[in-house]
Amino acid sequence: MASQLLSEIDEQPAALARQLVDGAAAARAAALRIRAFDPAFVTIAARGTSDNAARYAQYLLGARNGLAVGLAVPSLFTQYGAPPRLGRGLTIGISQSGQSPDVVEVVAEARRQGGATLAITNDAGSPLAAAADVHIPLAAGPERSIAATKTYTAELVAIAMLSVALDPDRSDGAAAALAAVPDQVAAALAANRDLHEVALAFAGATRFVVLGRGFNYATAHEIALKMKETSYVLAEPYSVADLLHGPVAMIEYGFPVVVVAPSGVATDELGPMLDILRWRRARTLAISDRDDVLARATAGLRLPAGVPEWLSPVVAVVPGQLWARALAVAKELDPDQPRGLSKVTRTR
Amino acid sequence: MASQLLSEIDEQPAALARQLVDGAAAARAAALRIRAFDPAFVTIAARGTSDNAARYAQYLLGARNGLAVGLAVPSLFTQYGAPPRLGRGLTIGISQSGQSPDVVEVVAEARRQGGATLAITNDAGSPLAAAADVHIPLAAGPERSIAATKTYTAELVAIAMLSVALDPDRSDGAAAALAAVPDQVAAALAANRDLHEVALAFAGATRFVVLGRGFNYATAHEIALKMKETSYVLAEPYSVADLLHGPVAMIEYGFPVVVVAPSGVATDELGPMLDILRWRRARTLAISDRDDVLARATAGLRLPAGVPEWLSPVVAVVPGQLWARALAVAKELDPDQPRGLSKVTRTR
Repeated sequence: MASQLLSEIDEQPAALARQLVDGAAAARAAALRIRAFDPAFVTIAARGTSDNAARYAQYLLGARNGLAVGLAVPSLFTQYGAPPRLGRGLTIGISQSGQSPDVVEVVAEARRQGGATLAITNDAGSPLAAAADVHIPLAAGPERSIAATKTYTAELVAIAMLSVALDPDRSDGAAAALAAVPDQVAAALAANRDLHEVALAFAGATRFVVLGRGFNYATAHEIALKMKETSYVLAEPYSVADLLHGPVAMIEYGFPVVVVAPSGVATDELGPMLDILRWRRARTLAISDRDDVLARATAGLRLPAGVPEWLSPVVAVVPGQLWARALAVAKELDPDQPRGLSKVTRTR
Repeated sequence: MASQLLSEIDEQPAALARQLVDGAAAARAAALRIRAFDPAFVTIAARGTSDNAARYAQYLLGARNGLAVGLAVPSLFTQYGAPPRLGRGLTIGISQSGQSPDVVEVVAEARRQGGATLAITNDAGSPLAAAADVHIPLAAGPERSIAATKTYTAELVAIAMLSVALDPDRSDGAAAALAAVPDQVAAALAANRDLHEVALAFAGATRFVVLGRGFNYATAHEIALKMKETSYVLAEPYSVADLLHGPVAMIEYGFPVVVVAPSGVATDELGPMLDILRWRRARTLAISDRDDVLARATAGLRLPAGVPEWLSPVVAVVPGQLWARALAVAKELDPDQPRGLSKVTRTR
């Protein structure tokens, strides 16, 4: 039987190419609205996979657009009935289904307070799309696997397009870099077709650390989430800085660590980190385009070269999706049928 | 040999009583400055244990004071050289030592941009205290253990005092509730002196989930961090909502879950969560003052009754500190000497 998860992973180059075309007008309209509002800050409400897209937005809208971005605390709105003041800010809701009541409520409350609001969702008819002033639709097509893959990368590309539209006069080759992403995702897929051997080597492990930094802190979170959803392992994402502030104590002989390290400013400190991990005799799986990084790890997943760091999360997560699926198969689990999960989770 | 960690845990009632007296004038001065500035939003920079105090501040300043609080992304300032615009906001740096260069840089940059800035630190002569407009000193006294305990609860009390000072006319009995905290912490210490039996029952586990919600999401993070620092286990903190959005798939027979559930709005959904966990045959350790919650768990750590939810994180973390230490002892580790950690971590 064909794997639904694998087929949705493989749809990503086509889905992202569609996003670049179909989502362009909406990204420009959202940017116009946001620039006119001039928000003092940005709050993003999201859950699960979409929360990892929110993490990417926190870095990208900060670094490229100078926006101070924080992640919302939905329970203040839904549990405590004490929403903070969002009237001087932009509030963004991100949700594949557009159904999660807590995400909808944060956006609806921000709009009631007179703040600017934006929805990013794969369902243009969803409550989330209706709750916001402006809406950027995802062109991912229906997603049936419980573990989200193509809607995650579509969310990242939608956010990247918004960032470019917010500062259209910046001459950093952003449009050309964006246009190259679908082919780079296809290259990442082609380079990591057969991960069964690598996955077998880690199949006995039940706990992992997944390291990322900067833009790819989001990628570390998302790969860890995919591993948990499909393989039932405990996989905890960390930035290098947070790991050094305490949890590094738990890394011991044989401890498996996934290191997300595409080329960029953030990679420079991941090299020395790999040496610390080797000294502690951890087993490492590096995801990188850099030969020197791949050479320092126990095993490696190769990324295509030439992806700018701000877009690297779209490409770097792809081998991680394939890796999470391969780990499940190596553990003789069915990654298409995670136990105890449904596609739409209605948390308050 | 006496345990330094245990003696610092035991100092907390006295340290918090000092904080309530010695920190009062500084909390009022900071509140005056903040109210005059009228920040559109709040950004908090912190690492490790202090980052968990920041999480508490995110809930408390949101729920009690209506402030939209986000956690800073220090690497935008230090790695990418692309700090976001903080001029319309309040930026708070929290650090026991006041030394962490990245936390200092976020506060210094916010001040350069004309934003309001506040430092909370245990060292009044530190770079962080010097970087901010206003400073709330911690009265915890020198902390020598690598695993921070008394400075964490002192940070929480300093934040609670700031929240009360920001809305002094609110007649919710806040001052009396604050004054009761040192005795409640002493009661939590007295009720959980001997956790060796409980710890032995979990000593074989190497991975844990620590659940919290709302105000005590911070407590779940901090207890998980203490467990990692002293016992080298993988302990991942979750809110109930985030667990249900995917990672619940990993909970299987015998999986150990710590549930932080003091009385409050957030506890009501932790009861049903305990039933889900029992159905999945997880082993649970509940930290609660509620008999019905304690009865549904495999084992329990009792909290004193009558602590209002907004102050419960100060009290609820204390049995967790004792539990983390007992787990280390049960694993025949030395919680006073975590491997690979130093007291001051200088991350960029």
